[in-house]
Amino acid sequence: MKHLKNIRLIVLAILSSAFFINCSTAQNPIYNQSIEESMIKALEWQEAHPIMALAPTDWTNGAYYVGVARAHKATKAMMYMAALKNQGYWNNWQTFKRLHHADDVAISYSYLYIDMTDRRRNFVDLEPTKKFIDAHLYEPDAWKEGKDKSAMGKTILWWWCDALFMAPPVINLYAKHTKQPKYVDDMHKFYIETYNQLYDKEEHLFARDMRFVWTGSKKDMKEPNGKKIFWSRGNGWVLAGLALLLEDMPNDYKHRSFYENLYKEMAAKILSIQPEDGLWRTSLLSPESYDHGEVSGSGFYTFALAWGVNNGLLDKAKYTPALKKAWNALADCQHEDGRVGWVQNIGASPEPASFDSWQNFGTGAFLMAGSEILKLDNQ
Amino acid sequence: MKHLKNIRLIVLAILSSAFFINCSTAQNPIYNQSIEESMIKALEWQEAHPIMALAPTDWTNGAYYVGVARAHKATKAMMYMAALKNQGYWNNWQTFKRLHHADDVAISYSYLYIDMTDRRRNFVDLEPTKKFIDAHLYEPDAWKEGKDKSAMGKTILWWWCDALFMAPPVINLYAKHTKQPKYVDDMHKFYIETYNQLYDKEEHLFARDMRFVWTGSKKDMKEPNGKKIFWSRGNGWVLAGLALLLEDMPNDYKHRSFYENLYKEMAAKILSIQPEDGLWRTSLLSPESYDHGEVSGSGFYTFALAWGVNNGLLDKAKYTPALKKAWNALADCQHEDGRVGWVQNIGASPEPASFDSWQNFGTGAFLMAGSEILKLDNQ
Amino acid sequence: MKHLKNIRLIVLAILSSAFFINCSTAQNPIYNQSIEESMIKALEWQEAHPIMALAPTDWTNGAYYVGVARAHKATKAMMYMAALKNQGYWNNWQTFKRLHHADDVAISYSYLYIDMTDRRRNFVDLEPTKKFIDAHLYEPDAWKEGKDKSAMGKTILWWWCDALFMAPPVINLYAKHTKQPKYVDDMHKFYIETYNQLYDKEEHLFARDMRFVWTGSKKDMKEPNGKKIFWSRGNGWVLAGLALLLEDMPNDYKHRSFYENLYKEMAAKILSIQPEDGLWRTSLLSPESYDHGEVSGSGFYTFALAWGVNNGLLDKAKYTPALKKAWNALADCQHEDGRVGWVQNIGASPEPASFDSWQNFGTGAFLMAGSEILKLDNQ
Repeated sequence: MKHLKNIRLIVLAILSSAFFINCSTAQNPIYNQSIEESMIKALEWQEAHPIMALAPTDWTNGAYYVGVARAHKATKAMMYMAALKNQGYWNNWQTFKRLHHADDVAISYSYLYIDMTDRRRNFVDLEPTKKFIDAHLYEPDAWKEGKDKSAMGKTILWWWCDALFMAPPVINLYAKHTKQPKYVDDMHKFYIETYNQLYDKEEHLFARDMRFVWTGSKKDMKEPNGKKIFWSRGNGWVLAGLALLLEDMPNDYKHRSFYENLYKEMAAKILSIQPEDGLWRTSLLSPESYDHGEVSGSGFYTFALAWGVNNGLLDKAKYTPALKKAWNALADCQHEDGRVGWVQNIGASPEPASFDSWQNFGTGAFLMAGSEILKLDNQ
Repeated sequence: MKHLKNIRLIVLAILSSAFFINCSTAQNPIYNQSIEESMIKALEWQEAHPIMALAPTDWTNGAYYVGVARAHKATKAMMYMAALKNQGYWNNWQTFKRLHHADDVAISYSYLYIDMTDRRRNFVDLEPTKKFIDAHLYEPDAWKEGKDKSAMGKTILWWWCDALFMAPPVINLYAKHTKQPKYVDDMHKFYIETYNQLYDKEEHLFARDMRFVWTGSKKDMKEPNGKKIFWSRGNGWVLAGLALLLEDMPNDYKHRSFYENLYKEMAAKILSIQPEDGLWRTSLLSPESYDHGEVSGSGFYTFALAWGVNNGLLDKAKYTPALKKAWNALADCQHEDGRVGWVQNIGASPEPASFDSWQNFGTGAFLMAGSEILKLDNQ
Repeated sequence: MKHLKNIRLIVLAILSSAFFINCSTAQNPIYNQSIEESMIKALEWQEAHPIMALAPTDWTNGAYYVGVARAHKATKAMMYMAALKNQGYWNNWQTFKRLHHADDVAISYSYLYIDMTDRRRNFVDLEPTKKFIDAHLYEPDAWKEGKDKSAMGKTILWWWCDALFMAPPVINLYAKHTKQPKYVDDMHKFYIETYNQLYDKEEHLFARDMRFVWTGSKKDMKEPNGKKIFWSRGNGWVLAGLALLLEDMPNDYKHRSFYENLYKEMAAKILSIQPEDGLWRTSLLSPESYDHGEVSGSGFYTFALAWGVNNGLLDKAKYTPALKKAWNALADCQHEDGRVGWVQNIGASPEPASFDSWQNFGTGAFLMAGSEILKLDNQ
């Protein structure tokens, strides 16, 4: 049977090369089979190279396993579910430990997904997730109450834009899964605070935190070209988080239009600044600062925009060519052995990457992108 | 030194191809070196792709690590023992948790094997295994006492045929290792109950559970061809379990002949229905239902029958050609990267598989098969 | 971007082969890129094949992760730090359990290295290390007090030469990291006891333990050639341990000259008995006993001697050709898939190895060797 399979692959390869030769000046075709193979290779490489900032339950793994969950949702390939269950089991379904810190509940997206998908009952333990969300939303805290006096301006619960990926989609999914819509309302209250502080209504992008918000002072941080500093991954967190939120938010939720509008506004901006080669630079408005594509931000954008096309929020004809270009460029960032390179390391502002630089959340962004690109041609 | 090794491999490859060309119409030769390499690749792939139904101590891993233990016993390759010790250590030598459920002690076969084989003292902790076996055999339970009223007819301890792989060989090996023959007797009592309920004395096969036993009623479940439903993996569990039992059961055990006779009767039946390409279909008497070879059942049969040849219970001349054909077909189900495909997923009756479908217990069956095929030419 | 990379690699390969053809009678050139690639492959293979004698915190893993730490220190490649943190996290920063046994604190070298290197605060827990070292140095014990009456002569704390790798460099690094120089003094007291018992001042090598020390009796153990038995790995532990000690010992430490002299004396001896092909045999003075290179001892020597060249303790012109020959031979012991072969298994005296034999501490020795060879051409 392996022989048959091999012959099929060889025939496919010959056909592909022929096609490639004839179409070399046109947009490269996207074969779903090759996308799925790239995704599986990325998963296998990442599972073989576990990495953490502070724990296997930290936000870096949280973001990675969101990608694995989305890949499973899109393809149903058992290998993703095996990886999801394995990490959840060994993590004993714990969140990370700082209950006031949005980062530390990102991992629960994967726990919720497993519980909603796997046939087995009594496998996932959602108690730690519930405990986190309740403490996070309802217990007093220095950030929430504006009592933290650090330079970063930690005067709200989600004082940095990454937080909008880490916690809101988890709270929203928890509300859906447990049929408790009140959680969405309580999430919304904090989301709006962050929007008010960090969203730049002129540029339609989020400042990473208060340090990057212009106040008109001479001391405002600027790029060498004089522009505001908008971090690619930071905005990727927000936009990908919005797609996750919209997917699981009730259609009749009273504030849904706020999220849809924000999503569409940011999507249009991101499309308008896509570099020629398909991948966004780490500093969105100063691409010349580090003039190479970066995979974590670009992966989140590709996911978010393709999700919008697939779900009827964005114009297919307008976005699809940009998305296929982005995916082809992302796929070129993958090493032969599956490693996803060109990922900016952990940080809080634009920094360079390299073909060799990798991180689990970069692999997660790659998987998220692939999971929606796969569906593009079916729209 | 690698160069010498490479040259040796190249020479071997050239010789093999030459031989292959000359013998292409005859039975493919079985080279032990290539069998051992296939087995190691299967192990490495499976270790890199951990999977569980409910826990790393569940029956799926139990069956897998029986395969790893048999592979180590046959080849002494350190890589198998490393994998065995690693899982035992991280599982803290626990069984899974339902003490009345045969599935949950299958993992202890590997713990017992390590304790009997590795030179290190005080490494394995057999207390959880002892605790399980004592509770399983001697404590009151709804199944044992016929108090479970479900449709599946759970009126005996081992009410489904898979159980005869999961618990009896472990209890038998525990009795041998701890020199307490009474456990074999207590195992036998429950084994006979299952035999009486599920063994079809006409077909010489086991019904999976009471739902598949014909009562003469019109409601009896049937294959589309009107035949009884006999599940390949289900009978694989029984036959492989019998080989394991016979290997470690005292030669003078009073009921040994019962097991030998049952083993030989089933073996003859299985041989008689082997499909032309070497691999059994998931529905033994209705191969046309899903007309492709399936690896978990076929792997268990290949193991069990080769064990019988290697141990003088089956006729070598009669069984060997069928076994070599089976192994060659099993080896063709392995992907280039080591993955063992064509494994029917978790289930309780015949279902289809595919080249891509895999499971840890399928890898276990593959390793068990290889471990006995390796010894065939030495008989 | 991958295409550019590939082209770069192809060009490099062509240049390398050309160079190789022109220089085939001279010393093979050592390309740092290929050294780094060999090291990464060794790491990846070993991480995929976890192995333990008794626990993931045992000395075998301790020695392996010393190698990983040294590789990270030399290259800064993130993959090493990911592996270091991963094991530390899952080991919960524990030592192994016998507080009087030097073996059981070797793993703490990696914990100390992470704590001194990774930016994250409050990640590593050094309490178990502190507890071990305090008990090890300051609590009463049968070995320390000469109350153990076994044949091996366990009359001092570190009664076997391997111990000089396992504990002293850890205690020394702990003293440096916590700024408590008294620990170095207390370490020195026990080091001298071992030196006095096991160092052969005629041969400039260590007996593995008292069984191998010649007393003038006819019963003294001898090699078939009549020579004393000096174990390659045993002396590798000592010499590599000395390099580790010297690196982190204060320059003005009052007994530093003792360690420098011992290091130089042993280094000269090891250089003088290097076999023609570059790799030392398991029995140093009876190479004909098992006449093939062995990787764990040779790796430790290559590390230790290259460290001495890189740090100005050994003559560069004299040692470099021997070291390059040793590294090239070590690299030839690595399989295509990254496995480091030709490693003598766990033992206490010379035994043979094979291309297939591997152990985590052998991989550790390989990484240690590579980490210093990388720096040779920069001296």
